[in-house]
Amino acid sequence: MTQAHVIQRTPLDADVLLHVTTIMRRSFDVEKIHQDGHGVSVTVLDDIPVAELEYTLKQVLLTCRYAVGDTLFRRTVLASSVSDPQPLLEAKGEVQSIGPGLFAYRGDFLRVRTALDVKIKSLAHQFGADELSYPPLWPVSLLQDINYFHDFPQLVLVPSGIRSDYQARSVFADRFRKSSGNTVIACSAENGFATAQHALAPTVCDCCYWLLRNRRDVSNKLFTIHGQVFRNESSFDNRLDRLTVYTMREIVMVGHENYVLEKRNDLLDEVEKLIVGLDLACNVKAADDPFFCNDALQKSAFQNLAQLKYEVEVPLFGDRTTAVASINLHNDFFSKSYDYEDSNNRRCYSACVGFGYERLAYALFCRHGAELGIWPESVVDYLELS
Amino acid sequence: MTQAHVIQRTPLDADVLLHVTTIMRRSFDVEKIHQDGHGVSVTVLDDIPVAELEYTLKQVLLTCRYAVGDTLFRRTVLASSVSDPQPLLEAKGEVQSIGPGLFAYRGDFLRVRTALDVKIKSLAHQFGADELSYPPLWPVSLLQDINYFHDFPQLVLVPSGIRSDYQARSVFADRFRKSSGNTVIACSAENGFATAQHALAPTVCDCCYWLLRNRRDVSNKLFTIHGQVFRNESSFDNRLDRLTVYTMREIVMVGHENYVLEKRNDLLDEVEKLIVGLDLACNVKAADDPFFCNDALQKSAFQNLAQLKYEVEVPLFGDRTTAVASINLHNDFFSKSYDYEDSNNRRCYSACVGFGYERLAYALFCRHGAELGIWPESVVDYLELS
Repeated sequence: MTQAHVIQRTPLDADVLLHVTTIMRRSFDVEKIHQDGHGVSVTVLDDIPVAELEYTLKQVLLTCRYAVGDTLFRRTVLASSVSDPQPLLEAKGEVQSIGPGLFAYRGDFLRVRTALDVKIKSLAHQFGADELSYPPLWPVSLLQDINYFHDFPQLVLVPSGIRSDYQARSVFADRFRKSSGNTVIACSAENGFATAQHALAPTVCDCCYWLLRNRRDVSNKLFTIHGQVFRNESSFDNRLDRLTVYTMREIVMVGHENYVLEKRNDLLDEVEKLIVGLDLACNVKAADDPFFCNDALQKSAFQNLAQLKYEVEVPLFGDRTTAVASINLHNDFFSKSYDYEDSNNRRCYSACVGFGYERLAYALFCRHGAELGIWPESVVDYLELS
Repeated sequence: MTQAHVIQRTPLDADVLLHVTTIMRRSFDVEKIHQDGHGVSVTVLDDIPVAELEYTLKQVLLTCRYAVGDTLFRRTVLASSVSDPQPLLEAKGEVQSIGPGLFAYRGDFLRVRTALDVKIKSLAHQFGADELSYPPLWPVSLLQDINYFHDFPQLVLVPSGIRSDYQARSVFADRFRKSSGNTVIACSAENGFATAQHALAPTVCDCCYWLLRNRRDVSNKLFTIHGQVFRNESSFDNRLDRLTVYTMREIVMVGHENYVLEKRNDLLDEVEKLIVGLDLACNVKAADDPFFCNDALQKSAFQNLAQLKYEVEVPLFGDRTTAVASINLHNDFFSKSYDYEDSNNRRCYSACVGFGYERLAYALFCRHGAELGIWPESVVDYLELS
């Protein structure tokens, strides 16, 4: 007989517990599964290592919670915004479109975006996270090793430069000179382009795991990274809730499974406090990631545990909502992909919490009004904007 | 008879004054040219508007100072660094190569880079500069209108994405999937790529002028912008002094010629104070911009006044130096290129002062040592790093 207990942040709904029980019964001779205020316990008649049982239960719990679209945290507010502040922000020049999914920022919108990072950076440092910074040009292999090109071709952006010979540079210089009328560029060999060795970063944290590649001494650690990320998409009506380039900060945990889960839980508490401090409504719920519709779709539902993702969904205006943050548990996906281990030859777990600053700022202007001057004092104070 | 006086920050060398005199004599019946402590005066027998004479004298002064490689400011220090701190910074993991011209940063190197921006951002705000932020993906026309593709093809980086049809996405997803072995990407139509509508920003300030396009009410104004910039280059030995992506801040002046020249002069004083505060040696001298060797080269010497550029050159180690900042006077180049004017139907002048943060941080580690702990207290205090 073996017993295992897995701590759960919030209780499972009855249907999730039933689902967990059914799946566990397929593998083990289950005597009892029950949950109390602290989590879920299982007792099986099989004589197996406790660690193995605990590991399996954890995986099943995560998969099931994810599969049924479980909600981790919910906050409602009395009044919600009815109108979109973006037209007024544009009229004031605080937000200025420079193309689909691309905006210039200034004034209060930029102040709020900056203040959000001051807050979240300080949170990261309070957790002892090590600050990292890198350029958003990543080697092709970095993204290829995690199958990014295969799973998200619709989001990929690949920059290429001109070959270093005089002939190639002359051809390009002439074809795209001022008044040439060529306002779109085919990055072809005929136009002088070399092949590309980098892609634009679609997020900030992957480089952090890649920098650990082949190491055998990875210890428990928190990192934090701020940067601009690039995705080949925009919103249908050119709103601030889906951008081609946006600013984000991630807080990353790498190490032993228990360490990663514990820190992730602590950070979830802080995300809740942040939402309360900003006086936003939210649902923290399992995310449907828009995978490209090849075999990646099938993988994503159950098998691809690497993509276990919760999103902090907040209202914008009317029925429109957006995800301002995401909480991702990768299990040992990156450790396998980049072949790194701890000093006990174990694969490392990882998780990250990411905040999208333009979306978060937009949600605040939706909730509290297009003019910073009329925002609640508590929110202005919380962001140290006064 | 007409008289004009042009204020000069530093006296002209005798050969520059001779050069100016010769050029002025080609256009006017010059009675006298002389300089005093405040600048250069000219008296001509021609009966022409004072403003016209003053304008011509200014252009000639700028061109001549530029052409002879004039030095605006020089500071020497007693001891200079003999060894390169980069190997030690890499050994400590504070600087980590992720490819030619691309580095990840952490620890003291990143702290110094961040502290430099705190300092220079506060200087910009002290001048009343309006903070702007935008994504480094710029419409092709933004760069084409200033002939960037023609003049600098060697630096261009153009990102392209996959076409939005299923077929294109499938082809790309399959060809560049994990373990495909394709570690370089040809951004061709055959691989599923669409044509590009944006290029990566090679600097931060151009977008600022472009956002003024077609306006007829541009008033005297200072802006400041912080961002990452992208150039298709790296140093031959992968040092921090020439990067494919680097971080910079620019302070931009737009408006009436006198306003722009005056603010530029005031900012030059502040650049000098900064260099002294950081205890760096430097030469502020006319720059040789590495134009692509087509007809742009010939233009650059005299005609292309748009490119009047001084660089703040600082020593690294041994004989190696780098430009950590540049001071550019564009005259009315951007106002013409993007067709904007002030409310009196006059073209606007512009100038910018830009700081390259990785180079500046590198120069500091060269000068004061690879360990922040042994830096002079005055520099640590100046950067508020203690």
